[in-house]
Amino acid sequence: MLTLNNHPSGRHFLQIPGPTNVPDRVLRAIDQPTIDHRGPVFGALGLAVLEGVREVFQTRGPVVIFPSSGTGAWEAALVNTLSPGDRVLMVETGHFASLWRKLAGRLGLEVDFLEGDWRHPVDAAAIGARLADDAERRIKAVCVVHNETSTGVTSDVTAVRRAIDGAGHPALLMVDTISSLGSVDYRHDEWGVDVTVAGSQKGLMLPPGLAFNAVSEKALAAADTARLPRSYWDWREMLTANERGYFPYTPSTNLLYGLHEALAMLREEGLPQVFARHLRHARATRLAVAAWGLELLSLDPAAHSPALTAVVMPAGHGADAFRKTVLERFDMSLGQGLGKLADRVFRIGHLGHFNDLTLCGTLAGVEMGLAAAGVPHRPGGVRAAMDFLEG
Amino acid sequence: MLTLNNHPSGRHFLQIPGPTNVPDRVLRAIDQPTIDHRGPVFGALGLAVLEGVREVFQTRGPVVIFPSSGTGAWEAALVNTLSPGDRVLMVETGHFASLWRKLAGRLGLEVDFLEGDWRHPVDAAAIGARLADDAERRIKAVCVVHNETSTGVTSDVTAVRRAIDGAGHPALLMVDTISSLGSVDYRHDEWGVDVTVAGSQKGLMLPPGLAFNAVSEKALAAADTARLPRSYWDWREMLTANERGYFPYTPSTNLLYGLHEALAMLREEGLPQVFARHLRHARATRLAVAAWGLELLSLDPAAHSPALTAVVMPAGHGADAFRKTVLERFDMSLGQGLGKLADRVFRIGHLGHFNDLTLCGTLAGVEMGLAAAGVPHRPGGVRAAMDFLEG
Amino acid sequence: MLTLNNHPSGRHFLQIPGPTNVPDRVLRAIDQPTIDHRGPVFGALGLAVLEGVREVFQTRGPVVIFPSSGTGAWEAALVNTLSPGDRVLMVETGHFASLWRKLAGRLGLEVDFLEGDWRHPVDAAAIGARLADDAERRIKAVCVVHNETSTGVTSDVTAVRRAIDGAGHPALLMVDTISSLGSVDYRHDEWGVDVTVAGSQKGLMLPPGLAFNAVSEKALAAADTARLPRSYWDWREMLTANERGYFPYTPSTNLLYGLHEALAMLREEGLPQVFARHLRHARATRLAVAAWGLELLSLDPAAHSPALTAVVMPAGHGADAFRKTVLERFDMSLGQGLGKLADRVFRIGHLGHFNDLTLCGTLAGVEMGLAAAGVPHRPGGVRAAMDFLEG
Amino acid sequence: MLTLNNHPSGRHFLQIPGPTNVPDRVLRAIDQPTIDHRGPVFGALGLAVLEGVREVFQTRGPVVIFPSSGTGAWEAALVNTLSPGDRVLMVETGHFASLWRKLAGRLGLEVDFLEGDWRHPVDAAAIGARLADDAERRIKAVCVVHNETSTGVTSDVTAVRRAIDGAGHPALLMVDTISSLGSVDYRHDEWGVDVTVAGSQKGLMLPPGLAFNAVSEKALAAADTARLPRSYWDWREMLTANERGYFPYTPSTNLLYGLHEALAMLREEGLPQVFARHLRHARATRLAVAAWGLELLSLDPAAHSPALTAVVMPAGHGADAFRKTVLERFDMSLGQGLGKLADRVFRIGHLGHFNDLTLCGTLAGVEMGLAAAGVPHRPGGVRAAMDFLEG
Repeated sequence: MLTLNNHPSGRHFLQIPGPTNVPDRVLRAIDQPTIDHRGPVFGALGLAVLEGVREVFQTRGPVVIFPSSGTGAWEAALVNTLSPGDRVLMVETGHFASLWRKLAGRLGLEVDFLEGDWRHPVDAAAIGARLADDAERRIKAVCVVHNETSTGVTSDVTAVRRAIDGAGHPALLMVDTISSLGSVDYRHDEWGVDVTVAGSQKGLMLPPGLAFNAVSEKALAAADTARLPRSYWDWREMLTANERGYFPYTPSTNLLYGLHEALAMLREEGLPQVFARHLRHARATRLAVAAWGLELLSLDPAAHSPALTAVVMPAGHGADAFRKTVLERFDMSLGQGLGKLADRVFRIGHLGHFNDLTLCGTLAGVEMGLAAAGVPHRPGGVRAAMDFLEG
Repeated sequence: MLTLNNHPSGRHFLQIPGPTNVPDRVLRAIDQPTIDHRGPVFGALGLAVLEGVREVFQTRGPVVIFPSSGTGAWEAALVNTLSPGDRVLMVETGHFASLWRKLAGRLGLEVDFLEGDWRHPVDAAAIGARLADDAERRIKAVCVVHNETSTGVTSDVTAVRRAIDGAGHPALLMVDTISSLGSVDYRHDEWGVDVTVAGSQKGLMLPPGLAFNAVSEKALAAADTARLPRSYWDWREMLTANERGYFPYTPSTNLLYGLHEALAMLREEGLPQVFARHLRHARATRLAVAAWGLELLSLDPAAHSPALTAVVMPAGHGADAFRKTVLERFDMSLGQGLGKLADRVFRIGHLGHFNDLTLCGTLAGVEMGLAAAGVPHRPGGVRAAMDFLEG
Repeated sequence: MLTLNNHPSGRHFLQIPGPTNVPDRVLRAIDQPTIDHRGPVFGALGLAVLEGVREVFQTRGPVVIFPSSGTGAWEAALVNTLSPGDRVLMVETGHFASLWRKLAGRLGLEVDFLEGDWRHPVDAAAIGARLADDAERRIKAVCVVHNETSTGVTSDVTAVRRAIDGAGHPALLMVDTISSLGSVDYRHDEWGVDVTVAGSQKGLMLPPGLAFNAVSEKALAAADTARLPRSYWDWREMLTANERGYFPYTPSTNLLYGLHEALAMLREEGLPQVFARHLRHARATRLAVAAWGLELLSLDPAAHSPALTAVVMPAGHGADAFRKTVLERFDMSLGQGLGKLADRVFRIGHLGHFNDLTLCGTLAGVEMGLAAAGVPHRPGGVRAAMDFLEG
Repeated sequence: MLTLNNHPSGRHFLQIPGPTNVPDRVLRAIDQPTIDHRGPVFGALGLAVLEGVREVFQTRGPVVIFPSSGTGAWEAALVNTLSPGDRVLMVETGHFASLWRKLAGRLGLEVDFLEGDWRHPVDAAAIGARLADDAERRIKAVCVVHNETSTGVTSDVTAVRRAIDGAGHPALLMVDTISSLGSVDYRHDEWGVDVTVAGSQKGLMLPPGLAFNAVSEKALAAADTARLPRSYWDWREMLTANERGYFPYTPSTNLLYGLHEALAMLREEGLPQVFARHLRHARATRLAVAAWGLELLSLDPAAHSPALTAVVMPAGHGADAFRKTVLERFDMSLGQGLGKLADRVFRIGHLGHFNDLTLCGTLAGVEMGLAAAGVPHRPGGVRAAMDFLEG
């Protein structure tokens, strides 16, 4: 058996913004014998998870489950609805938005990329303006990231919807909720989203390996005419097989066991309470950052992420050396700076299966790590978080 | 927690030809906390599995691991090496070969499909003839299924290689080993295969969710010029990240734990012994079928599969009713007839984590099921298998 | 991690008459974090298992749960109710009855031991006679083994009860159900038993480590005056703490999780069905033994055990060499001959979490082992069992 | 499956002084199929754990492993070495020492009980004096608790040994290490202990269910003449069976799997590092208590326990209400006051599988709980601990 921890004692603190700490209940569910994916017991499982997962997306429409990473669900959203040379409007909220853009380019799409500084949410007005300019309706889809995992900035999807509607533009609205679903309030139907992209390893509290597309009727209609080549990601055979709880190719059975259990846990806690818990932990974390005298990457207070907090390192201090100290001294994994933020920020994940004392341990690890690594800061971050949490 | 078994007592017999019975060691390995996929411990895991899995493919070249079903590895083989409109030569060995063909068509490839009767292996001479006719070298790849999971027929890959070489044709050789890898002797390098396609849920003894491409240098070179759109399946970023044990997008961490353990188990038993064990169990199964007076679907004795055995139902008797009886009375899942074989054959999986007594229980379940379902047969199948096994 | 199987592939057949094959559901339940044994969640668990386990004993009275082996529950039965020098009447049904006698002797009790040939059940008439002779009522307890695990002979507890009543004797009736509880119909209350002794690792489908005493009011009254020294095994503090679901010293928390799950499984199947299943598998096994031309150790057809079958080796053939062959060739553990039966019998466990196909595999292992070890027999045992099972 | 946590999200903090947080590695080891306790694989397991556990006791002599709670190992120590009416000298260090005394009384021993205030360690001089007075050598054993789990006071066993030797007294020395073994430096051989008593659920990081006696040659000799009735706890059959790795009655197989893994973990970390870690966490905890302005129960700085810290509640504030607040608000279990300390102290466990950040989370839970429950204190405890830990 592989040794998964360099440290000899105690539980590792996995405080990257995903994969998150998988609950024991979910791990034990996954650790059950694989069954016949064409048999009656599987059919019941399939129906249960396909139905249950809709609650989390807050949709009454279909949710397609792929055996893949979340990245695959990005690809699926595009290849099911678009044709070679189609134009999509994307917004540079950070590293993952940039990766999605790159992916779109590789698939042969033309991308209008609204540039951003990786510190602000989507500018809905700019989207509206761009769409208004698109008299020929060449833009077929607007793609935004709900919660930018690389920056800790959450965008207002309803504002994007209003901008599209305001421009009277027929583009599809696609939203990446990989690090928000199950952590941040998100409403596929009410907000008029056409394709929602999600993964298993964040708020859904599963290991990585499942990806999701929630799909509107308009998106389904687009799939009928879309001409990008597609097979693995094709929604149509999926939806047909899903009707009876099955899948057109072998599904990731054991992760579906875990999904069944994770959905039960979310239901037991209740989504409103789940969202409130994330807001509370995010606020406590920001209070700690402020107390340390460090700078949040996110500059718009209305857009601070409930799921993670990205912290800017003081000038002259590398984030990676700091994270290495924290890992080696305190057995905690923090998120690294990605893309152009490499070595400049570290990210604290406070999403998924999480509670107050684990947050306090996490913040203590950051604060002691700052001291141990010689990073200028004021102590008092944990104290500030505790003052809030105990209130 | 989901109840995975309709039967109240005893262990389910999962004797479909995959997913196979996952060993407890592998399940427990998967049931470990997810770790940071960008941290040092993951890097060591990544290097270990990327290196270790090569032994099973019998290759010194790279093996790409996707978080996907085996179906995804079919798609990956094609999109990495081919361009829109390219012609591929495929061989109709059965349902899965037909699905691969369909997939190729959807991706915009032209398929030459050598028709077959689903009861014989690949006709290497026919391949040679077709390639010889292809004076313009329009055929870019020859795609064959090593072990047709729908029929229990294994093809001779070396004969295909010789046919290609005999024709002096530059086409790539792609082989689907989804239900043979880790069960049937297979040698990617020695046999001159360019892309080998595999999945986790058969001889590798894992749950479904991982897929593999072993890649030759010639295939890698083809990837440089191939123009089918690709992103998720792209080998290039994979191979770059794999150099240090990492992946370009979030990998299926917990299944990789299981792969690590499964590779250890295969190494402990030794591949030659693994292959011998499968041959022995397949022979015992065929002895039982003969004793029952039933007909093998596979007609060429040299091509009987070591991994599964497909049995033709006597005229007037449906396979699905029989399988239902076996499931309900004896808590065993048998493989159904697929595609045009629906209701006409049943398939006995005898691959993966398996031993003599489980085989005897399996054959007893078939034999008692035949009796219980009123299917004409002679008893004595279990006896015939035991005579062989005890020898 | 320890390697628990000498064989490289497939699931071990654990066909000793206990410990039995622990269901995955129970193992996963045990594999949950240990909790505070004095906290509210534990209290709810404690109440649930203390209440639920009564159903299995078919009693409305208290059942004491010890963190110990079944052997401890033998000791507990005696030390709670008896005083130094007290006389107990025991019956030599086999090895375990003999061990219980030895234990009683060590505790300072005088034992009247009704001799037996280890092939017959308890002779209730002999008990009645001995009690009738005991004019001074010096015998304080009659101790019998319900199902002799060493011989595969089940005794009629109701006959013993009638014999005691017939003699008008006040002795307590104590019954060892270690290998019958949860497998063979047993009714603590209806049959007028005073102390029932049981363990976790047989019909309750748990690993070893829990032991039980079901206790009548008469036994409780005896406990008030009994003078054998006792502390760990003392019922009184147990029962007081149990009222709110707790224990006077640290209980075996994780095995109690398993008990909770095992009780759920027994309830789902239903005790009548559980008992019928065991009777059916026992009969199939005896049909196999008869077909092999081998001799049952149990001589009284009315007393053949539903839980295990002991088979006498043909003269000149050692049971241990045979069992070694079966273990090495077929990866199955069979029960050895115990005490004076050493090397003369082998025992087939067919109890606990078990089903038809596992039984067929088991019997095939015995039959092939007989052939492989050169033990004279007729083939056809598996066939005979299948004829019965498929009916 | 039972729901083990009233809280909907995050990992429970089990910070009672045992049972401790069981590592995932140990839980997964326990979650393996039970095997034949008389077969060859078990023999290898048995030898491995019987040998390996000696390292933790720092002895070259035998260690007996019982399937029982630690309480059973107390009883075993006494019944194996003493006779009815023997006198033992015990020391009132706290609740558990008092329970051991009560147990001795129940077994029919006479107890000389050196009274104590539950806030100090064993007074070795008083022991020496009492032994010196015992001219007739009626005292057969001196029994002390190494680490009083109810008070957080650790006694100096070497001083007790010197006191016995100084008095030239032949009494056996018995030491309870239930909450110190594997956490606090302890040397059975070097310190001249005759019987060491231990349990599985503290520093050994297992669930409860195994208990231990390390036994000196002198203790073994005493067992030859001791006349307290004994059977389950008898060392002699144990030691005979242990020679080949087996046990005289069914052992707790699955917990032995866990012991095998726990021993591997202790070996990987190294006992000196394990002890240093506990000392460090204990010191950090005491710094927090001091910063809160609360009172340690332990009054002798040389005797503060490395494994747990008991904190005295300010007058007028009940510990149980405080602990309830902590459990309900922060999902952490703290140890209650036992016996005469009920409601007057709470105990923080910082032993077993533990690390810096879990300690910080634990102390944060205490500090926030004090605030939430309105218990007078100064904030700054977590800060004080962090100042020390980060140094």
